[in-house]
Amino acid sequence: MKVRRSDRLVDMTRYLLERPHQLVSLTFFAARYESAKSSISEDLTILKRTFQTRGTGLLETVPGAAGGARFIPYILREEAEQFVDDMITELSEADRYLPGGYVYMSDILGRPSALRQIGRILATQYLNQNVDVVVTVATKGIPLAQSVANYLGVPFVIVRHDSQITEGSTVSVNYVSGSTKRIERMALSKRSVKPNSRVLIVDDYMKGGGTVGGLRSLVDEFDSQLAGVAVFAEGDFAGQRTVSKYTSLLKIQTADEQIRVSPGNYLTQIFGDDSQLK
Amino acid sequence: MKVRRSDRLVDMTRYLLERPHQLVSLTFFAARYESAKSSISEDLTILKRTFQTRGTGLLETVPGAAGGARFIPYILREEAEQFVDDMITELSEADRYLPGGYVYMSDILGRPSALRQIGRILATQYLNQNVDVVVTVATKGIPLAQSVANYLGVPFVIVRHDSQITEGSTVSVNYVSGSTKRIERMALSKRSVKPNSRVLIVDDYMKGGGTVGGLRSLVDEFDSQLAGVAVFAEGDFAGQRTVSKYTSLLKIQTADEQIRVSPGNYLTQIFGDDSQLK
Repeated sequence: MKVRRSDRLVDMTRYLLERPHQLVSLTFFAARYESAKSSISEDLTILKRTFQTRGTGLLETVPGAAGGARFIPYILREEAEQFVDDMITELSEADRYLPGGYVYMSDILGRPSALRQIGRILATQYLNQNVDVVVTVATKGIPLAQSVANYLGVPFVIVRHDSQITEGSTVSVNYVSGSTKRIERMALSKRSVKPNSRVLIVDDYMKGGGTVGGLRSLVDEFDSQLAGVAVFAEGDFAGQRTVSKYTSLLKIQTADEQIRVSPGNYLTQIFGDDSQLK
Repeated sequence: MKVRRSDRLVDMTRYLLERPHQLVSLTFFAARYESAKSSISEDLTILKRTFQTRGTGLLETVPGAAGGARFIPYILREEAEQFVDDMITELSEADRYLPGGYVYMSDILGRPSALRQIGRILATQYLNQNVDVVVTVATKGIPLAQSVANYLGVPFVIVRHDSQITEGSTVSVNYVSGSTKRIERMALSKRSVKPNSRVLIVDDYMKGGGTVGGLRSLVDEFDSQLAGVAVFAEGDFAGQRTVSKYTSLLKIQTADEQIRVSPGNYLTQIFGDDSQLK
């Protein structure tokens, strides 16, 4: 039975939102709703307009009978700034201070609504960059990697400090922790990244950049290319970082048991000083 | 400017899908679209009908001027069965066999589309059960916990084998690994679970059930109650499991370097033998 436009709009929205970066054909929708392709095209125009008006993302439409639509999520500057502001307020709470100058943020990294926004924001930077896989290192970067990968429509893989029997053969590298100067080791399952992949590194926190440096040498070991490095928060680091190009949503400084949180370099790098992402 | 019905439908769908289990008021939507509450109510009726027809979930509408709508995601038996069938096919591939009788499944647990379906399926069992928090143990259960928590609209927390400085004070327990009989230790940040929480344990794989047993004693240490145990796959285990009540999507057996995957107990326990979830 032919499906009404209103019902089609609801279901198409759901269907496309669940499949970021995936081309869904007009033919598929026409069969699903027993409707003419011309009607489906009109529906897609409505989705596209609404997604744009609301800052949900771009609905890329591929014209012609063999065409279709692809949903590319992004976030607008204003919404990203609002989120960064909210995070600054929340992370500045005094009781988040931990001995050693760390800041408790596991609750935020376990909150689905925050992870969605962080994922959308970090994915926005790479929406046109053909990322093949997101790489993170256990443990706290995993939820972020999952969210970014979801919005980019690509898989993510987890590098581990302990080599696990459930990973099969692994490739491992040694690296020097940027802050403690200790030598550490990390391993990644051999079959998890194909050669010549474009790899986006995502992590929750970067201080000296040693871990990210280790991840970057792993990318080399897999004959792959680094697409970029994106972290939720960067810490204060006096020395020379081993990683120079990265984006961070937040910058966290601690001194005398006080926490000071400010915006990272993301907003100005991605949105510029006053330009607006179209 | 008053927003057209078609545009409202698209944006409301997106807005509600992103906020599972959260009540969104008619007042909010009426202001967002500069439309009458009566029009919004009609829109919600369309969403409700389409979500039901397509097996997306329940749109619970709260009547009256102070009312609103809450999206409760679920999955229907047919779609869940299809997913389990697909997983059986994929996990039965011979090259997934790993020495020691393990099966490689990290690729599936790093694929956003699979994680979405696993999350929807496992959340369906608990949609009416007032779960307050999802608990998992590092590392491979994390993506599953994140997805389940997302569909239940609750946070998730990560129990760790290594006590981390970034977690603040922790509570730790010892437990006996069900398969190796070794004594292990796991810790959870003290501030991550409030007393009297209803806790859902989620993990990727259960063999002897020792890890899940450890998680259960942690739940006790936090003066909280166990809502349930849900795992992606259970392994073959000859002895007496320390955990008797759980649901699993898949059962994986290995012998002589052969993998045999069959449905776990989830489908029959949740959907019964031939009943259909309404």
